[in-house]
Amino acid sequence: MAANPQFLTYVDDHKDDYIKRLSDAVAIASVSGNLSYVKDVEAMGEYLVQQLTALGATVEKRGIGKHTLEGKEVDLPPVIIGQVGNDPKKKTLLVYGHYDVQPALKEDGWLYPPFELTPDPKGSGKLYGRGATDDKGPVLGWINVLEAHKNLGIELPVNLKMCFEGMEENGSVNLDKFIESEKDEFFSGVDCMCISDNYWLDTKTPCLTYGLRGINYYEIKINGPDRDLHSGVFGGTVHEPMTDLIALMSKLVTPSGEILIPGVKEMIAPLTDDEKAKFEAIHFSMSDIHGAVGGDVTISNDTVKTLMGRMRNPSLSLHGIEGAFSAPGSKTVIPCQVKGKFSIRLVPNLTVAGVTEHVVKYVKEEFAKLGSKNTCDVYLTHGGEPWIADPNHYSYRAAHKATEAVYGQTPDYTREGGSIPVTLDFANILNLNVLLLPVGRGDDGAHSTNEKIDTSNYINGTKLLGSYMYELAAISKD
Amino acid sequence: MAANPQFLTYVDDHKDDYIKRLSDAVAIASVSGNLSYVKDVEAMGEYLVQQLTALGATVEKRGIGKHTLEGKEVDLPPVIIGQVGNDPKKKTLLVYGHYDVQPALKEDGWLYPPFELTPDPKGSGKLYGRGATDDKGPVLGWINVLEAHKNLGIELPVNLKMCFEGMEENGSVNLDKFIESEKDEFFSGVDCMCISDNYWLDTKTPCLTYGLRGINYYEIKINGPDRDLHSGVFGGTVHEPMTDLIALMSKLVTPSGEILIPGVKEMIAPLTDDEKAKFEAIHFSMSDIHGAVGGDVTISNDTVKTLMGRMRNPSLSLHGIEGAFSAPGSKTVIPCQVKGKFSIRLVPNLTVAGVTEHVVKYVKEEFAKLGSKNTCDVYLTHGGEPWIADPNHYSYRAAHKATEAVYGQTPDYTREGGSIPVTLDFANILNLNVLLLPVGRGDDGAHSTNEKIDTSNYINGTKLLGSYMYELAAISKD
Repeated sequence: MAANPQFLTYVDDHKDDYIKRLSDAVAIASVSGNLSYVKDVEAMGEYLVQQLTALGATVEKRGIGKHTLEGKEVDLPPVIIGQVGNDPKKKTLLVYGHYDVQPALKEDGWLYPPFELTPDPKGSGKLYGRGATDDKGPVLGWINVLEAHKNLGIELPVNLKMCFEGMEENGSVNLDKFIESEKDEFFSGVDCMCISDNYWLDTKTPCLTYGLRGINYYEIKINGPDRDLHSGVFGGTVHEPMTDLIALMSKLVTPSGEILIPGVKEMIAPLTDDEKAKFEAIHFSMSDIHGAVGGDVTISNDTVKTLMGRMRNPSLSLHGIEGAFSAPGSKTVIPCQVKGKFSIRLVPNLTVAGVTEHVVKYVKEEFAKLGSKNTCDVYLTHGGEPWIADPNHYSYRAAHKATEAVYGQTPDYTREGGSIPVTLDFANILNLNVLLLPVGRGDDGAHSTNEKIDTSNYINGTKLLGSYMYELAAISKD
Repeated sequence: MAANPQFLTYVDDHKDDYIKRLSDAVAIASVSGNLSYVKDVEAMGEYLVQQLTALGATVEKRGIGKHTLEGKEVDLPPVIIGQVGNDPKKKTLLVYGHYDVQPALKEDGWLYPPFELTPDPKGSGKLYGRGATDDKGPVLGWINVLEAHKNLGIELPVNLKMCFEGMEENGSVNLDKFIESEKDEFFSGVDCMCISDNYWLDTKTPCLTYGLRGINYYEIKINGPDRDLHSGVFGGTVHEPMTDLIALMSKLVTPSGEILIPGVKEMIAPLTDDEKAKFEAIHFSMSDIHGAVGGDVTISNDTVKTLMGRMRNPSLSLHGIEGAFSAPGSKTVIPCQVKGKFSIRLVPNLTVAGVTEHVVKYVKEEFAKLGSKNTCDVYLTHGGEPWIADPNHYSYRAAHKATEAVYGQTPDYTREGGSIPVTLDFANILNLNVLLLPVGRGDDGAHSTNEKIDTSNYINGTKLLGSYMYELAAISKD
């Protein structure tokens, strides 16, 4: 069912109001995880409560405990939950967003004050400001939809439950506990979920995102002498921890990205024809990635291989070494203890525990082969499972139709190479299909200086979220 | 010719005066390379001038230019040159020492105030204080010798030229230029040279040191993307500079210390029977090195192999990586540019240029094999040649006899695994045999907290320096 045409017209007619709303929200510097901004995060939560209340939602601000910031114990930002409609004949949609933002300082290289939404003076339609795309724009998209329906006197086609948190940029502390505790309360009766907190792969093609890679982060710790040694005095006489560590790290992955740990590749889920077709259909050219990394340093120049390298295959990155010399200049030290850091991105059917078993076994076997008298330990520092949703679920089909209606384009079906842990919390605790429905573009610069959202993405995004509700209401669950 | 017995008796009788002299000198906090201590370094130079002048030496304080300390241009500490005797029938001995010291703060872990010479209250004879052994004790050893001879009314058996600098702990800036400029002036007519600025290998056995390893310090720089990348987004799609670098670093040296760069081992000078015998005669047990490094992490448990690993073989140490993640914790970065740092200790006949040629060729060839689209550069950041003296030179034979006379022990013939660049400057510019004749013990802790000299080493060291003069005067040059 296409969206109510009055709604679409209303959005177009109220573009300036919507930009004003985004401007008001960006002006609240809701940087989480920083003692100086605690009041601003609180103010942003309160702003949402007022907006939602004014639009007829039932709203609650829920405390989720305390945490320590710069040595001081403070309340975690509240979770804002809101609901519009409770009609048992309608589907119930849960949406999530976050009202906190990354830090931003003008002097970091921003063209304009980061907490003043600033339209590109060249008229490109870009709206610069911290949080514009991550994630205030998408959150306000839902509010824009509510406002349109309230002012037009139209009922929403679905029951809408909203959950907005203020700690996403700082680890979503306690959100999992909140979801668990409200599983049979606020979150009961939800049919499916939509999160708008990622981005199009490129700058032109809307997409639906149905997978996230997980991550296992490891340290290999080599202990040798009990103090750092001078390489003049001891070089050539002792087993050097760095030599052992470099030998081990060199055995994890080849320069062309092949993971050398036996058993890991074997865990990858077989590629289905449907998946393959979805990867082949993605709008992507090698120049997109070459532009993003500043040159042709890609392992493959085949677009499908490159996309699958990012989205459906595991990868292993060597991040660095703790304990060795790392400053500019020359220091002739033999470090006595070094920790090599690497991570493996996980995809179905790699599991945190299964991969760790292979890694630990392999690293210990390889260390034994070195014949060193140093000691070696290898351990997981944190792990997060991969996630994949059924992209043929009715929620995705609804979003597909909504995208075609708003953009006149078939959406790409993408997966993210990184992780969005809240997705797994919602999906697993509530046992829901989660649709990741991005509003912004791949070049929005979330977390960077000069974060922006394009006016067209913000306005069409509002239409997209609203249209998705209509399609969802109409679509068969089968 | 044994030392004049009156001299030896005088030294024993004036032990307390000599300790008082060391105490006065340690009290002057002559820390070089620190703006706060510029006046103290100057005061220490002036102290030497006054002492030497009072003992009848011709003394000059020579400026050697300026340098910048903490942003301020200041004079370099002067070189103090002194001379006693100018008899063409006598040999002329040049001695070198330095009057500056390493920094020291009580709160770094010193048992006693570092600039107050403090005898061990347990009566071990240890004298704690910064500079006690490095290098004020040895420098005052020469002054003690002069004082004894002046007060006894005995002529020195040799002409003595002294060169004391105040920048050794901070790179001996401009000393090479000074030596070059005074080659045919102050330094003319010198027969041989003695430097007391290193240590016995252990705590019991006097030694003569006839070699130093050189060092070539290298960086391998890998450039890839033009900015750091997120491993979630780009892991599996690009050639990662860290993977390339770790692969290259793993190909330089084995965990048992074997250098893998073709051509390097082949440059090592063949071992002579005389050298072999000297290594076999060194008093050394594996427990010495196991104690020094805090456990059995030695590549070999054979003493001669271990000594040769330190003293006459090249070694390659991997020091660290600049540009990669090096802090505690987890960061999922793909660093865009990384620099791997390693050094090779040089021994005869390895040369700075010859080794560099092999290193650059090998690293570039190995990089080409990786099939990476990143770029690789490898270059020497600094190089210092190895040095070896003829341990059968008459100066060494004289020191050998003096050691036997003072200590009743045959000295070990050692080489240092590290470098003492001034040695090469004097040896090469003046074309001299240089004898390294240590006064202190291997556990003196030069550069560490709780630096000390044993009273017996300070007093016997004074006798040793004096006795060496007598033996030198008498010995045949053939």
